[in-house]
Amino acid sequence: MLSAEENRLLTRVGPGTPMGTLLRRFWLPALVTPEIPEPDGPPLRLRLLGEDLVAFRDTDGGVGILDAYCPHRRAHLFWGRNEERGLRCAYHGWKFDVAGRCTDMPSEPATSLFKDKIRQTSYPTREKGGVVWVYMGPPDKQPASLPRLEWLEAPDGYQHVTKWLQRTNWAQGMEGEIDTAHISFLHSSRTKYAHRLVHTAFADPKRNEARKDGAPRLSYQEAPYGFTYGARRDAGDDEYYWRVTRWLYPFFSLIPQVPGAPLVVSGRCWVPVDDYHTWTFGYLAREDRPFQADEIDLIMHGAAFPPRLSWGRYELPDGYIIDTSLPVANRDNDYLIDRQMQREVNYTGIYGANEQDRAIQEAMGTIVDRSREHLGSSDIAIVAARRLLIKMARALEAGQEPEVVTNPGAYNVRAIDTFSGHAQLADLLAELDATLGVARFS
Amino acid sequence: MLSAEENRLLTRVGPGTPMGTLLRRFWLPALVTPEIPEPDGPPLRLRLLGEDLVAFRDTDGGVGILDAYCPHRRAHLFWGRNEERGLRCAYHGWKFDVAGRCTDMPSEPATSLFKDKIRQTSYPTREKGGVVWVYMGPPDKQPASLPRLEWLEAPDGYQHVTKWLQRTNWAQGMEGEIDTAHISFLHSSRTKYAHRLVHTAFADPKRNEARKDGAPRLSYQEAPYGFTYGARRDAGDDEYYWRVTRWLYPFFSLIPQVPGAPLVVSGRCWVPVDDYHTWTFGYLAREDRPFQADEIDLIMHGAAFPPRLSWGRYELPDGYIIDTSLPVANRDNDYLIDRQMQREVNYTGIYGANEQDRAIQEAMGTIVDRSREHLGSSDIAIVAARRLLIKMARALEAGQEPEVVTNPGAYNVRAIDTFSGHAQLADLLAELDATLGVARFS
Amino acid sequence: MLSAEENRLLTRVGPGTPMGTLLRRFWLPALVTPEIPEPDGPPLRLRLLGEDLVAFRDTDGGVGILDAYCPHRRAHLFWGRNEERGLRCAYHGWKFDVAGRCTDMPSEPATSLFKDKIRQTSYPTREKGGVVWVYMGPPDKQPASLPRLEWLEAPDGYQHVTKWLQRTNWAQGMEGEIDTAHISFLHSSRTKYAHRLVHTAFADPKRNEARKDGAPRLSYQEAPYGFTYGARRDAGDDEYYWRVTRWLYPFFSLIPQVPGAPLVVSGRCWVPVDDYHTWTFGYLAREDRPFQADEIDLIMHGAAFPPRLSWGRYELPDGYIIDTSLPVANRDNDYLIDRQMQREVNYTGIYGANEQDRAIQEAMGTIVDRSREHLGSSDIAIVAARRLLIKMARALEAGQEPEVVTNPGAYNVRAIDTFSGHAQLADLLAELDATLGVARFS
Repeated sequence: MLSAEENRLLTRVGPGTPMGTLLRRFWLPALVTPEIPEPDGPPLRLRLLGEDLVAFRDTDGGVGILDAYCPHRRAHLFWGRNEERGLRCAYHGWKFDVAGRCTDMPSEPATSLFKDKIRQTSYPTREKGGVVWVYMGPPDKQPASLPRLEWLEAPDGYQHVTKWLQRTNWAQGMEGEIDTAHISFLHSSRTKYAHRLVHTAFADPKRNEARKDGAPRLSYQEAPYGFTYGARRDAGDDEYYWRVTRWLYPFFSLIPQVPGAPLVVSGRCWVPVDDYHTWTFGYLAREDRPFQADEIDLIMHGAAFPPRLSWGRYELPDGYIIDTSLPVANRDNDYLIDRQMQREVNYTGIYGANEQDRAIQEAMGTIVDRSREHLGSSDIAIVAARRLLIKMARALEAGQEPEVVTNPGAYNVRAIDTFSGHAQLADLLAELDATLGVARFS
Repeated sequence: MLSAEENRLLTRVGPGTPMGTLLRRFWLPALVTPEIPEPDGPPLRLRLLGEDLVAFRDTDGGVGILDAYCPHRRAHLFWGRNEERGLRCAYHGWKFDVAGRCTDMPSEPATSLFKDKIRQTSYPTREKGGVVWVYMGPPDKQPASLPRLEWLEAPDGYQHVTKWLQRTNWAQGMEGEIDTAHISFLHSSRTKYAHRLVHTAFADPKRNEARKDGAPRLSYQEAPYGFTYGARRDAGDDEYYWRVTRWLYPFFSLIPQVPGAPLVVSGRCWVPVDDYHTWTFGYLAREDRPFQADEIDLIMHGAAFPPRLSWGRYELPDGYIIDTSLPVANRDNDYLIDRQMQREVNYTGIYGANEQDRAIQEAMGTIVDRSREHLGSSDIAIVAARRLLIKMARALEAGQEPEVVTNPGAYNVRAIDTFSGHAQLADLLAELDATLGVARFS
Repeated sequence: MLSAEENRLLTRVGPGTPMGTLLRRFWLPALVTPEIPEPDGPPLRLRLLGEDLVAFRDTDGGVGILDAYCPHRRAHLFWGRNEERGLRCAYHGWKFDVAGRCTDMPSEPATSLFKDKIRQTSYPTREKGGVVWVYMGPPDKQPASLPRLEWLEAPDGYQHVTKWLQRTNWAQGMEGEIDTAHISFLHSSRTKYAHRLVHTAFADPKRNEARKDGAPRLSYQEAPYGFTYGARRDAGDDEYYWRVTRWLYPFFSLIPQVPGAPLVVSGRCWVPVDDYHTWTFGYLAREDRPFQADEIDLIMHGAAFPPRLSWGRYELPDGYIIDTSLPVANRDNDYLIDRQMQREVNYTGIYGANEQDRAIQEAMGTIVDRSREHLGSSDIAIVAARRLLIKMARALEAGQEPEVVTNPGAYNVRAIDTFSGHAQLADLLAELDATLGVARFS
């Protein structure tokens, strides 16, 4: 459990909050490339870390992310014309480039110098791995490189990234992600629905047998990128079955894949829209070849991550509208729960894995009251992530910059799923990190 | 009128409020049996007195009402599996019985003692008369018996109970219920729509004639169960026409039925969902035989109480979702008002009696501003109910327990509709309470 | 820009606020006649200046505007029966006339004197020019006459007035109205869609050529009624093209019409529903003859003002319901923006001029943060209107009554669209006010 004050510190991300300040030291995923596909296409409304923004891809293909409101009279730039290297406000024609410079101000006399005094807030972006990244912190602290995550380093098409809206605080999603124990319950018995890409993993009889143990022994070990935690289950007298997950600052997961399965990377990250909404980015990668169209169809079918999605506009409770991918099964339709399915087919009566997660996480309330929890031994990864983030945010308040942002190579790791003898986690990592645990694309 | 402070005291029912504390001394109707029909069936989300709860009927047929949120990580137990004498949380499989004991904790090692330290908040329930009753107060104050209301004591099937959501504070509904004067206006001219069960009453020409007097003389008299109030109208030179209604702590009504009519009990009670929403329970009873299917169809047709209903989920303004019966004609469709009907058929242009009541009560605002009323002589029952409840809540704050909760036999009364000579209320009661005024089933 | 305090002063209009007090010194448009067409017809829910009201047309044709809530027990009078010179509450039959007198109280004994002590808050109304006007200020300050606006003075049928809901504070709409510069951008290229009534103006090649200058020189001059501001554009070497707009206290506009066009008056006013919603009244007038049915059809088609409308009920965010005209293209459907239309046909991809305005104004937020603006030379009319209103509200706080309310003849002006030599605004007005600038109907 957390005190009310710690819970606030963990969850609040607006400008000036300790956690918001920390997150603004990182490059953050903001959009997936297909949301904003073409130069001079329609702009898009978004909110990140509580800030209202507009995104557009300009004539040269670069993506601008600007304060949503024109500095003149606060018209929303979403209504604007995206044309000739800039987004032109529909109200009086003021035009801004991706760097926030006002490049045209036709409502003032041609001789006016007013234009040069105007600078719209803009945030630098990079595009890689199918993701538009944004940096929202102080310019002099901007990390030179994106984190060297394996799925980012993979050749184009070897990774597949999706984004969708979750209606909770970001930490709730992130905690669910690293909660190993729930797999044996919430997601159990879903063999029938799992898509073929992950089918191999679930069809391995030895692993399936071992996974039935819903109370694995958990160990964890800090690392420069965050921490590793391993779930150890007995697999006969002579062997442990280890699933070793990576948690990377500030909110990335790498979930173990079965050796030999097509997927080598699967994970999620949790980017705060505001204190009450989160964009989940789900990323997959294979190392052998690009994903094929029929595989992408399978992925989009909704059995695991992403859920079934529809593109749409969404009005946040305070009235601000964002353009985003929305899960088809959501809290407004009780995630299409089917109690007959719950009795006969799977644990929940809810179809897909992310739908199951969101059903749980969204019904906790948008910010769960962590002062009323009763954590057990299965919760050590959650405890660790909270502790490290709070510690890092407080250190930054005291003037100590987070080291990991200037160490992109630290992200060069892979999650592990393996059988071993009776080694403990530290030994296992010492042994494996040079082989199984190293990302290939890095 | 009430002062703002008195209004607050009367209407606020959350934990720790004076009125909330008082209501928690009583057995309260929580559900009607058909909402939760079968052992091991789907759980149901509810809120009572501002507390978020989950209800389930276990394998043995008992009904559990628990805090909605799993004590582990605050997953909502609505997603859970209702199986083998307990509700199992869908997140990590923790299982709770109807008493809130954690009977299984599969996410922890089998040797763990953690399970025994966990106790989910649970409230005792009883089921009688088609209603699941709950007690939400301190265990040592739990009344031994349910109130001996006539419709509760009647044999199975002799009573019919329904429940539906009203979108106001509970006191607004309760006050409308005991407001005798409005019958002559709001509900007048609805002969055409009254269903056959109550038809006899409204078709009695002598009563109909007497009821045209919209300003009856009201008297009231306190009693151990609450109070009686009588509306007296002239019925010729030699006679009074008396309608004597019972108001029973803390929120039950008994409305007079015409002697010889099939119905012997009709009334409502007003159970707070939270400060802004209320479940109305409507109860009917006959003494001759069980209700037949065609009579129940008539009741459900919506002319009086209940209104036309549809079963559904309802999102409260704070985002919490409850499973409940919802009136088809409601504030979102202006209660299907028909101004032509208002000109030609009835007083309001709204079809059913409860629909008429809700139109009035919901448009007052969720908590009416009682400091701006101008009460007249027709409002003495309302004034009395407020005064008694506020007095009882303040006495409890001062340490004086409400006596009526340990006196279930006090509820053994019936409402009266009769002609008499020129007796006053006290005389009438002295004369009649031993005959007409006594419940048969008790 | 305004300070946060000035912004509050400008925008808050509830009882007791400085701006609310100022607006209550004026006769205000409340309804258009067709909303409340017939004697003894259905009452109508409205809110004005944050006050919840009910309007009804009584048997004699007069319009009553009363506090919405019956003084007895706070039932909403909308449910009432409008009959025989009064609105009768549906709850207990209390009846009120247009002056708020309780003329019948059938729930009390006939001998009761209670009725005479009851007086419902009512506001005086007048009906003229297709508009029901209301005065909500202190009785002793009530202006004797309505403002002598040209469209009000015109014979019946020579004017056409519509009303619709805008989901922003009133000042946002009013500022957009007097913002000359945005015409050249937001509303440009809409020739194709402009309806025939205004077609002449837009089809004049010399004017169209001159209007391409998006940065006209603005001048402004105060006047007893408010102020005049002129937008001056070069029209060849020897000539200026002047568009001279009138802004009249507290929120009326008169927009210049081209000489010889059928329309001689076009303008809007912005009546606060509450701090977050506004009724726009749009008025048009011609001087030659009444509008014909096909012309009204054209006006209602939505190319300019009004937008396409549907009659309906609207639930305000605090739950209060009003009966009003609602724009078909609105923030819930992104004003039906069509990005293809934006690329090929007009500046915004939004069809009508008011739809374009509302898209801009509503997406600013319901109360725009004026402390974050960067105003340029094109914004002098906006700056002037704010300054005059704030000054007048503060003067009234200090005891100085607004003079204009007792000077209805001051409103006897017309906006001007003309070519001239190289005269400045003051000269132009000196020259023209006696001819082009004087309203004919006055």
